[in-house]
Amino acid sequence: MMSQSKSKPKKTTLWDLPLLKPLRVITRSFSPYWLACIPLTAVIVVVWESAAQAQGFGAPETVEELRAVLDSIFLLFASVLVIFMNAGFGMLETGFCRRKNAVNILSKNLIVFAVATIAYWAIGFAFMYGNGNAFIGTSGFFFSNDPTPYGDAAYPDGVPVAISFLFQVAFAATAATIVSGAVAERVKFDAFLIFSFLLVAISYPISGRWTWDGTWLGAMGFNDFAGSTIVHSVGGWAALVGAIFVGPRTGKYREDGGSSAIPGHNMSLATLGCLILWIGWFGFNPGSELAATANVPYIALTTNLSAAAGGVAATATAWIKDGKPDLSMIINGILAGLVGITAGCASVNYISAVIIGAIAGVIVVFAVTFFDKMKVDDPVGAISVHLVCGVWGTLAVGIFHGETSIITQLIGILAIGGFTVVFSAIVWGVLKATIGIRVSMEEEVQGLDIGEHAMEAYSGFVKEADVLTGGRTASMGSKGGEVPRSSET
Amino acid sequence: MMSQSKSKPKKTTLWDLPLLKPLRVITRSFSPYWLACIPLTAVIVVVWESAAQAQGFGAPETVEELRAVLDSIFLLFASVLVIFMNAGFGMLETGFCRRKNAVNILSKNLIVFAVATIAYWAIGFAFMYGNGNAFIGTSGFFFSNDPTPYGDAAYPDGVPVAISFLFQVAFAATAATIVSGAVAERVKFDAFLIFSFLLVAISYPISGRWTWDGTWLGAMGFNDFAGSTIVHSVGGWAALVGAIFVGPRTGKYREDGGSSAIPGHNMSLATLGCLILWIGWFGFNPGSELAATANVPYIALTTNLSAAAGGVAATATAWIKDGKPDLSMIINGILAGLVGITAGCASVNYISAVIIGAIAGVIVVFAVTFFDKMKVDDPVGAISVHLVCGVWGTLAVGIFHGETSIITQLIGILAIGGFTVVFSAIVWGVLKATIGIRVSMEEEVQGLDIGEHAMEAYSGFVKEADVLTGGRTASMGSKGGEVPRSSET
Amino acid sequence: MMSQSKSKPKKTTLWDLPLLKPLRVITRSFSPYWLACIPLTAVIVVVWESAAQAQGFGAPETVEELRAVLDSIFLLFASVLVIFMNAGFGMLETGFCRRKNAVNILSKNLIVFAVATIAYWAIGFAFMYGNGNAFIGTSGFFFSNDPTPYGDAAYPDGVPVAISFLFQVAFAATAATIVSGAVAERVKFDAFLIFSFLLVAISYPISGRWTWDGTWLGAMGFNDFAGSTIVHSVGGWAALVGAIFVGPRTGKYREDGGSSAIPGHNMSLATLGCLILWIGWFGFNPGSELAATANVPYIALTTNLSAAAGGVAATATAWIKDGKPDLSMIINGILAGLVGITAGCASVNYISAVIIGAIAGVIVVFAVTFFDKMKVDDPVGAISVHLVCGVWGTLAVGIFHGETSIITQLIGILAIGGFTVVFSAIVWGVLKATIGIRVSMEEEVQGLDIGEHAMEAYSGFVKEADVLTGGRTASMGSKGGEVPRSSET
Repeated sequence: MMSQSKSKPKKTTLWDLPLLKPLRVITRSFSPYWLACIPLTAVIVVVWESAAQAQGFGAPETVEELRAVLDSIFLLFASVLVIFMNAGFGMLETGFCRRKNAVNILSKNLIVFAVATIAYWAIGFAFMYGNGNAFIGTSGFFFSNDPTPYGDAAYPDGVPVAISFLFQVAFAATAATIVSGAVAERVKFDAFLIFSFLLVAISYPISGRWTWDGTWLGAMGFNDFAGSTIVHSVGGWAALVGAIFVGPRTGKYREDGGSSAIPGHNMSLATLGCLILWIGWFGFNPGSELAATANVPYIALTTNLSAAAGGVAATATAWIKDGKPDLSMIINGILAGLVGITAGCASVNYISAVIIGAIAGVIVVFAVTFFDKMKVDDPVGAISVHLVCGVWGTLAVGIFHGETSIITQLIGILAIGGFTVVFSAIVWGVLKATIGIRVSMEEEVQGLDIGEHAMEAYSGFVKEADVLTGGRTASMGSKGGEVPRSSET
Repeated sequence: MMSQSKSKPKKTTLWDLPLLKPLRVITRSFSPYWLACIPLTAVIVVVWESAAQAQGFGAPETVEELRAVLDSIFLLFASVLVIFMNAGFGMLETGFCRRKNAVNILSKNLIVFAVATIAYWAIGFAFMYGNGNAFIGTSGFFFSNDPTPYGDAAYPDGVPVAISFLFQVAFAATAATIVSGAVAERVKFDAFLIFSFLLVAISYPISGRWTWDGTWLGAMGFNDFAGSTIVHSVGGWAALVGAIFVGPRTGKYREDGGSSAIPGHNMSLATLGCLILWIGWFGFNPGSELAATANVPYIALTTNLSAAAGGVAATATAWIKDGKPDLSMIINGILAGLVGITAGCASVNYISAVIIGAIAGVIVVFAVTFFDKMKVDDPVGAISVHLVCGVWGTLAVGIFHGETSIITQLIGILAIGGFTVVFSAIVWGVLKATIGIRVSMEEEVQGLDIGEHAMEAYSGFVKEADVLTGGRTASMGSKGGEVPRSSET
Repeated sequence: MMSQSKSKPKKTTLWDLPLLKPLRVITRSFSPYWLACIPLTAVIVVVWESAAQAQGFGAPETVEELRAVLDSIFLLFASVLVIFMNAGFGMLETGFCRRKNAVNILSKNLIVFAVATIAYWAIGFAFMYGNGNAFIGTSGFFFSNDPTPYGDAAYPDGVPVAISFLFQVAFAATAATIVSGAVAERVKFDAFLIFSFLLVAISYPISGRWTWDGTWLGAMGFNDFAGSTIVHSVGGWAALVGAIFVGPRTGKYREDGGSSAIPGHNMSLATLGCLILWIGWFGFNPGSELAATANVPYIALTTNLSAAAGGVAATATAWIKDGKPDLSMIINGILAGLVGITAGCASVNYISAVIIGAIAGVIVVFAVTFFDKMKVDDPVGAISVHLVCGVWGTLAVGIFHGETSIITQLIGILAIGGFTVVFSAIVWGVLKATIGIRVSMEEEVQGLDIGEHAMEAYSGFVKEADVLTGGRTASMGSKGGEVPRSSET
């Protein structure tokens, strides 16, 4: 009857009664393509048993059970904070970029956690913690075959693996999000999504396994408690390779060899992002203890001391170097302190945490200048913060913690960095040779929001470009300014 | 003496000494009306005993006590996340609406949690969890007469009821907040406040009691773990009725039958709102376990998988359907996945969670189109997300969880939906017939911020409308642009 | 070799090979000044033992140990919420001020937590909780000499002092942040930083010690559970003195005696800030229990009831008084309710909490008018919210809690207030006489963002001032609008 009514739309039938209008609209809205999902779903349902798989013992009754539940709640708390870091990165990166690319950056930072969740669920967690060899795990795909897919992981007895997965996927997504900032304002949306999927599904879990599943790097004594190298420098290397492959933004580097500052469009959002990341790190670092223990406060405090020292040091450095305390340097200094302490937060003492953070804060100011001189265009400073300070933080454990060898730290940095660089170069290279990784010059000048998403971020606010070019007649007359015609906003 | 001085303001007295100026200003600021509050307060104080009512045993000393405290802390954590969802809804709805109505939407979303707290404290909690009959509770008003006002609720021994109340009020407020988005940009502020108060005081708790206090729907086996129906579709039904009663925004539907896209003014805020809601759901769903148990991680993970699948599916659907990955659809897809898994988060398996979320993500894209065709104007997509995906999520438990009957799920959806629709229609209808529910056409065109609140959201930023009409002479000369004179911003 | 190559930059050597370009840039980026840090660091490392100082027993095995860990996790949760309040204050204050000063306010609110952390770590914590006399502590500087630097503090056995420090530093920073808002839009950045450092290092910990370390005020029975006086009114007094010393903003008070409303530039951010502060208070108040106990839910609920009552009362008051429900008054009413209940949250009953909050909500509306009439220019209402309602909340404990003497409360308010006023007057006075505390009139008119930080907050958005003065030719042609030339934005 539905197809019948659709084939005779002009002839009045029972189907055309006003009362049935909703039904008509429904059937027209759903094409046969989508209706085909119904039997497909039925099949899936029959194949998988529908019984719930909730694990564990419910309400705890002994100290051991209570401890396992407390560990779970603590890891949920930590996971939520780390997942919230997606909002932090999203606001930070969006604020640091131009208005005309805001929708694109927001879209990337929002969908990347969804993509990372699917990638890590389907593949990544198995590669990282599944049974297998020292290099790669080979079981536990789709988180369904194996109720306890990890090997030598350090979870206490009884803690449900589900919370392990949630905490780990939040980490994996962080690595991908770091890349987002460095390639912003010119990367193609689809290419970024594919790269993110592959990074989270393949590269990050493999190199992460070497330490956190206790295989060869971990066995050597490589000390990277919460991931200065395993998460931040991995994201940073992938960002560096991406930024080189995609090339600098149009207009960033002039023909005379100089570079133009391209100011971000919303420092309020960027600052909010920094503060969200700051609290997010109280999940990132203490949560890496993987259990609720008496060490958690210690880790939280070294983290905060280093962040504060990084912020103060970067502010002072920028003030001395450039004559003014630049807000973007305050932000990056705090993040530098946080990245720097990530490896050593559980093993260095308080004064060392302050020193590590302060040095990170100094380094990041010069690193931003350095990459700019090298003509590596990184709109948000992601490479300086996550790669440079991630490496610094990992080395710092060797310097400030007597039981850790600086040589082993170097081996870990090089092994994980080398693997990530090779992987990233292959993926970015293949993408560039096939679907392309950069939007057209025309789209870049117009802004990626229109080109990639057909919408604007700030409808109703007059753009400088429109006023400058006198272009307010047509584009402003249309509601929402569909087609801005000028370049620098 | 005070009134004397006020009656002779021109004659110099001791009271006019410069030193006493602060005192003079104080007495003038407080009218006699307000001074009357002082004896009133005194009376109240005498009537109520002022002794503290802190409950429980203080620091825990046994496993049972420790468990109760851990439950409390966990529910506080969950409550905070759910309360934070007010910020999520606030940013989401404000971002999706126009600049000229931002103050109004922010005001609604901010005050609604305050109003809901008072309404649920005075009346709602008693109706929902007080002793009474299967339909309604009749004791425990003002949370004061009865230290444990709930009946068959599932709280473990020793957990203070205060945290139960806090968690429940956050849920109740969510239902009201959902309505806010659907009626935005034309509803009267006072009418919305009254509706919200009544929804939270009367309607939501009554229909919520049927399941969550274990009366007739719960006894039938209706399975709505965290409220796909009890919270989200209730809010959605009230929103649908509200949107129909208040009518579409001026200019939304053209005379030729088509509709105009009215773009939101701040996609950065909308995206931030979505990410806040995402983490808020880690309180909403796991917290609905109402205790810290080993099931909590499982619930958190199904929630996250569904959200991710919803986001990816909606992105793909919008990309295929419209040619571009629309950011508002990415946002709504994630929310659809979250709403969809809310009923089944504790009972379906992981793969089912992914399927439920993915289907919700597809549904929401078509639902937005459907309601637009039906000329139900919902500026933020609240009805599509919360009503449609709430219904889908409730049915999905019947499909994917073997022990739940799809017929029972349908009965629950219809009973709660029917009650909410009737209640909402009566309240919106009475409000429309009395104080009115819609601002004047003039106020709507000018923006509700000026009409309802006498202020603007973004002072100092040039509006498109001003530049377009050349209206920048007068309104911009005044600081803050008191009276914008044009329409489309 | 490095210095050699640098002295002959024009002559081609091995050093000039293209491959070595990164190395060359590195050496040029780091001046000898910075390179000197390397041996300095080495010395520091040798002096301090590098062994980790993680405390405690690791994974808990008994009820006592589990309780201590639960306390720690709860205090970490509370600390994170209180630290997040920095984002709340940052967004609130930025949103309430003008666009041209946004970067300055964001910078202040961001760096102040870093500065406070260093100040409290180096000095403040020792003054407040170190061994010493009733007035001041004299041991435990740099948190390193004494593993347990506090005296009579109420932490349960086994809870690591690190989490105590983290929670306390978040409180200390709050006091400094409150000042930020009242002196915004004209205070010099360096003067504010110095004041904040000294407030957190010296004044706040000394007066805080009198109650919270159990010395003379605490012994008298002064009841300020979570700091209506100790934190909020201290910040409020310092803010009042600062606002008087720095003077009102140019253009705020007219020669005819009237005052001009200067609208904030971003009410979305301000509302977000309020909602962040609301959830932050669930750390601030319940965390002040300093342990996970069965009282925590009670404290959380009184806090929420008072906030809601404050919001509703302020909305109603503003509606009656001014004819419209002003959003800034809704925001300040909620904050007033929160500040008001901070002293009594653990000791007054629920109905009293509602009354305290409602009265605070009424008071704050009149207090804002009062300070405006007194020509104390407080752009964000910080003095009305934190000082006035802090005093009110402290007195309210004497009124609503039978065991607390209102006389003792008054003594506490006056002692702590007097000390803070004297301290603040000395510091602001010395700063004014030396480096100066106010930017130049020219800089104030232009905006502090350019003058203090050489950047703008919202590049790409047209300012009203530019359109009004026709100044769009030069300043808009430059990317990012370096030099706005007009005043009122």
